[in-house]
Amino acid sequence: MRAAVMYGAGDVRIENRPDPKIVRPADAVVGVAAACVCGSDLWPYASMPATDTGRPMGHEFLGVIEETGTDVRALKAGDLVVAPFTYSDNTCDYCTRGLHISCRNGGRYGFDGVDGGQGEAVRVPYADGTLVKLPVTADSTLLPSLLALSDVMTTGHHGAVTAGVGRGDTVLVVGDGAVGLCAVIAAKRLGAERIVLAGRHEARTDLGRRFGATDVVAARGEEGVARIRELTGGADRVIEAVGTRSALDTALGSVLDGGTVSRLGVPQYEQGPIGPGVFMRNITLTGGASPARAHIEQLLPDVLDGTIAPGLVFDQTFTLGRTPDAYQAMTDRQVLKALIRP
Amino acid sequence: MRAAVMYGAGDVRIENRPDPKIVRPADAVVGVAAACVCGSDLWPYASMPATDTGRPMGHEFLGVIEETGTDVRALKAGDLVVAPFTYSDNTCDYCTRGLHISCRNGGRYGFDGVDGGQGEAVRVPYADGTLVKLPVTADSTLLPSLLALSDVMTTGHHGAVTAGVGRGDTVLVVGDGAVGLCAVIAAKRLGAERIVLAGRHEARTDLGRRFGATDVVAARGEEGVARIRELTGGADRVIEAVGTRSALDTALGSVLDGGTVSRLGVPQYEQGPIGPGVFMRNITLTGGASPARAHIEQLLPDVLDGTIAPGLVFDQTFTLGRTPDAYQAMTDRQVLKALIRP
Repeated sequence: MRAAVMYGAGDVRIENRPDPKIVRPADAVVGVAAACVCGSDLWPYASMPATDTGRPMGHEFLGVIEETGTDVRALKAGDLVVAPFTYSDNTCDYCTRGLHISCRNGGRYGFDGVDGGQGEAVRVPYADGTLVKLPVTADSTLLPSLLALSDVMTTGHHGAVTAGVGRGDTVLVVGDGAVGLCAVIAAKRLGAERIVLAGRHEARTDLGRRFGATDVVAARGEEGVARIRELTGGADRVIEAVGTRSALDTALGSVLDGGTVSRLGVPQYEQGPIGPGVFMRNITLTGGASPARAHIEQLLPDVLDGTIAPGLVFDQTFTLGRTPDAYQAMTDRQVLKALIRP
Repeated sequence: MRAAVMYGAGDVRIENRPDPKIVRPADAVVGVAAACVCGSDLWPYASMPATDTGRPMGHEFLGVIEETGTDVRALKAGDLVVAPFTYSDNTCDYCTRGLHISCRNGGRYGFDGVDGGQGEAVRVPYADGTLVKLPVTADSTLLPSLLALSDVMTTGHHGAVTAGVGRGDTVLVVGDGAVGLCAVIAAKRLGAERIVLAGRHEARTDLGRRFGATDVVAARGEEGVARIRELTGGADRVIEAVGTRSALDTALGSVLDGGTVSRLGVPQYEQGPIGPGVFMRNITLTGGASPARAHIEQLLPDVLDGTIAPGLVFDQTFTLGRTPDAYQAMTDRQVLKALIRP
């Protein structure tokens, strides 16, 4: 089969790789119908040291089950399924509490002999515990929004839930990437009344307004914080959807004392400002990597009935062969989020 | 009047200072019946640069109202009152949400012309918004426990509340100082089933057991974390009641993925480890300086009926003149918490 493999910064290649096969009884092989490039894929694309072996890429995909291992009970060949961005057994103590991202037996696509999602097929470990069956066919126009459940929409939802967003709240979303925009959808869905989106790419913030943002702040740094405070008097609940220190600083500068900052962007720093300043202000820092598997079932009905349409974040479709171009286009910010069709 | 003034590390003096007088209409002058030395007073006692002007010390006291300004409505001369460790107007937006520590008009004792609590009398700004009237007389045997509401008990309670402690929980309390011990009381009061106290001073951890700790871990660092994990399998809710980086590391090492660490000790660091590790584990970092004023009324009935007895943390009483000895005795860990009687 053909699949995308990264060999270093700026170096994504489409290669022939062995066709996935059932290795363990709980495995399923999924033929990929749609995949995408994640904002987090752009970090290694910017900085990964060159390697001879390469790393299969992609952790967001949906597709049709081709084959199942003997232990797979809930799924069968022909089922259309969406994959959360990590696999999980759905039975361990962490999964039982809805924290599938910390699954005792879980793991990441593209590592430990598991294929990446940017390819023609993927062997999925713990298929019953991981994959969620979709009640539509592979030609459904809902496919982009269903694919968004794999990561960005469930991640945005995780931010809104962990930030404690509720009816009538004022929420700040820092970052107009696909996750930030999905956080806007999620905040609105949970009843936020005022949603300030901090971002400076007009096409993206326009989409953010369509999703429910009531205000957009394009200014950054201290000027951005001043503008946000002017608009809101300070936000009670902040969703930080970038991962840089400057985004965190904007979040901490804009949040009210006693408020909550939920982080969704993988931190590009090891140490952060949690000294006496944050302490005296009683700021709660929460969020983290989303347990997508736990959130999919909750959001699925709203996607199916059209209440939310996170698939709008996909603004360009690439064939699998053009995946390297998709990386570059997203890096150049010509494309918000690239959908890949094998 | 006589009061304690710090002139630098290791240099606390008892001096004659001007008798407090009403300055603003919302002020009250309180004659101090009992005060104490806080663990946080020991930080400047260890490191404050020498100064000629000195800083009046103490932020925990209770006493009898001697005089009130013309705007004071709820209190009158002769009332016995306890002071939260900061003053607050109890009317601003932060106070209204119970975050008195962030009061728009609030401040600290010993700063901005306001007396410290370790003295014979204190002018208290916003007396109606700050002081809580006590339904006992100044000779009550409950006085030490009522004094604990000024800071340590309300701070321990803040940790348990922000950590989300509830019935049946397993809670780790890091630190066997007065705040850590009060956090044990608070965790038990909120229904925790298992309370592990990390501390290595046997007299203190024995008191912790009396307060409700079910297990004590004396080992520190990685060995301590290993022991805590062996005992608990990881704690869902951790209260960090020290403020050092090593205490935070113990907290982060011991908490389960998806768990909460609430900080009560003023951080003795500016930067902390909130990079990808904490992010991927979905750890929530919360807590902060306690809004004591908000918590006093909730805890007061339990002190009055003897359900909780946080006053047991006071293991030695000093006259005001011996306040310098109290600082040294606490620094030398000969005394857990010193009560001062002017």
